[in-house]
Amino acid sequence: MTGLELMQALQAGDLPAPGFAVTLGIEPVAFSEGRAAFALEPGPEHLSPLGTVHGGILSTLLDSAVGCAIHTTLGARDIYTTVDLDVKFVRPVRPGQGRVTAEARTVHVGGRIATAEGRIVDEDGTLYAHATTTCLITRA
Amino acid sequence: MTGLELMQALQAGDLPAPGFAVTLGIEPVAFSEGRAAFALEPGPEHLSPLGTVHGGILSTLLDSAVGCAIHTTLGARDIYTTVDLDVKFVRPVRPGQGRVTAEARTVHVGGRIATAEGRIVDEDGTLYAHATTTCLITRA
Amino acid sequence: MTGLELMQALQAGDLPAPGFAVTLGIEPVAFSEGRAAFALEPGPEHLSPLGTVHGGILSTLLDSAVGCAIHTTLGARDIYTTVDLDVKFVRPVRPGQGRVTAEARTVHVGGRIATAEGRIVDEDGTLYAHATTTCLITRA
Amino acid sequence: MTGLELMQALQAGDLPAPGFAVTLGIEPVAFSEGRAAFALEPGPEHLSPLGTVHGGILSTLLDSAVGCAIHTTLGARDIYTTVDLDVKFVRPVRPGQGRVTAEARTVHVGGRIATAEGRIVDEDGTLYAHATTTCLITRA
Repeated sequence: MTGLELMQALQAGDLPAPGFAVTLGIEPVAFSEGRAAFALEPGPEHLSPLGTVHGGILSTLLDSAVGCAIHTTLGARDIYTTVDLDVKFVRPVRPGQGRVTAEARTVHVGGRIATAEGRIVDEDGTLYAHATTTCLITRA
Repeated sequence: MTGLELMQALQAGDLPAPGFAVTLGIEPVAFSEGRAAFALEPGPEHLSPLGTVHGGILSTLLDSAVGCAIHTTLGARDIYTTVDLDVKFVRPVRPGQGRVTAEARTVHVGGRIATAEGRIVDEDGTLYAHATTTCLITRA
Repeated sequence: MTGLELMQALQAGDLPAPGFAVTLGIEPVAFSEGRAAFALEPGPEHLSPLGTVHGGILSTLLDSAVGCAIHTTLGARDIYTTVDLDVKFVRPVRPGQGRVTAEARTVHVGGRIATAEGRIVDEDGTLYAHATTTCLITRA
Repeated sequence: MTGLELMQALQAGDLPAPGFAVTLGIEPVAFSEGRAAFALEPGPEHLSPLGTVHGGILSTLLDSAVGCAIHTTLGARDIYTTVDLDVKFVRPVRPGQGRVTAEARTVHVGGRIATAEGRIVDEDGTLYAHATTTCLITRA
């Protein structure tokens, strides 16, 4: 399976959800070439001592989206590794506020290095955090 | 309670563990002025589809450590917000390899902005990921 | 003068070019609310020992654009300070290849924190580097 | 020449200073395996419109130091490319305040990816900015 086929199989439930996604309640939402989105329903299980969703949980949602945006561009035996993730937090996410979605797209896909960017928004389009990533690609 | 007293109360179990820490199995390890450490026992509940611990989980461990390193320097009514987290991943963490610890310390603590750095290492000192953060401080 | 008026006065030559811009040959190109662009004609005076334009010079071009994109949104006595700049380099820029432009826009402008993103492209739209920034704002 | 030999030849003046270093007045200071330092005497030619040294100039100083710290570990025909530079600015640098130095060291040197960190300090050790980088290595 190509990267995009793998993402689509995960979304269709033809492959089991990975451990982190079950643990955190992160769900695949949409995939196309160079784009990926994952969503989270914020709840008490995601909270930091400050009473808002822990920045690491938002980073996990963004890391999934930006990494998979790159993965959707890869061939069946290509491998990618995330080398850098940079997240900017602009508003707190609170439990009970409703689902938030990380939407990502590739910025550059080269032979060995790819970059992508993503944003966490709610259903009204309000921005909560944004991120960029750099991935190392090993071509088959 | 000052930031350091709050961290020590969490570690002693005098305050309930926050939701994210229960969900992910992240444990407070050590706190002193300008320093904080948290640990994680990697298991199947942390895995990405690639079979290694999801980068977001490592980011959560690092975000906890770097944010709390800054928090330990704050007074009782001071508030901090993380505005930026930058993580570099240098080796995969695998389930069953044993506990990894994120150790962090402040780099700069100013009136409104503080920065900190942290590293994830195992019990042999092998490095897996490192991070820096910027936090905005609201003084009481 | 508001931030936007200040940028426009610099571009019109009604204010003297700042030292760094004269030294590096960086020119103001376009400004509107939430957007800024600066250009550079790559030459031998910008080269690293590797024979391509030094990443720091590209960072200077991007830092100017992302900072000024935020500045264009500020009132006459508001002040901003850059606290974080993250640059991703995706292709080398070579002397003699023709002018490159850093185009930036704000992502989030809050009361105390603003973020922006920018990209360096040539006249064909080829991407060379991209960046994000976080600025601290002191409102008048 | 290995990377370290190349750095030492630049410092000794046995190789011509690269264009960017002449333009900005950046000087090589010290090199050893995994470590590099460059200095700058802040002057009016480095200033932003805010009257302090432009963040891009500080980024250039840091980029030189962190990249060369990695370069000192490389063999004669190994090549490195900077893929990511993240800079945190903690205090303004002013003209006439005296020389500032960016001191850097490697954090991780792997087969294809290396990371390094650096800090800009003055002669009293006061911190002005700090940075991390990720470089892609092509082994001979």
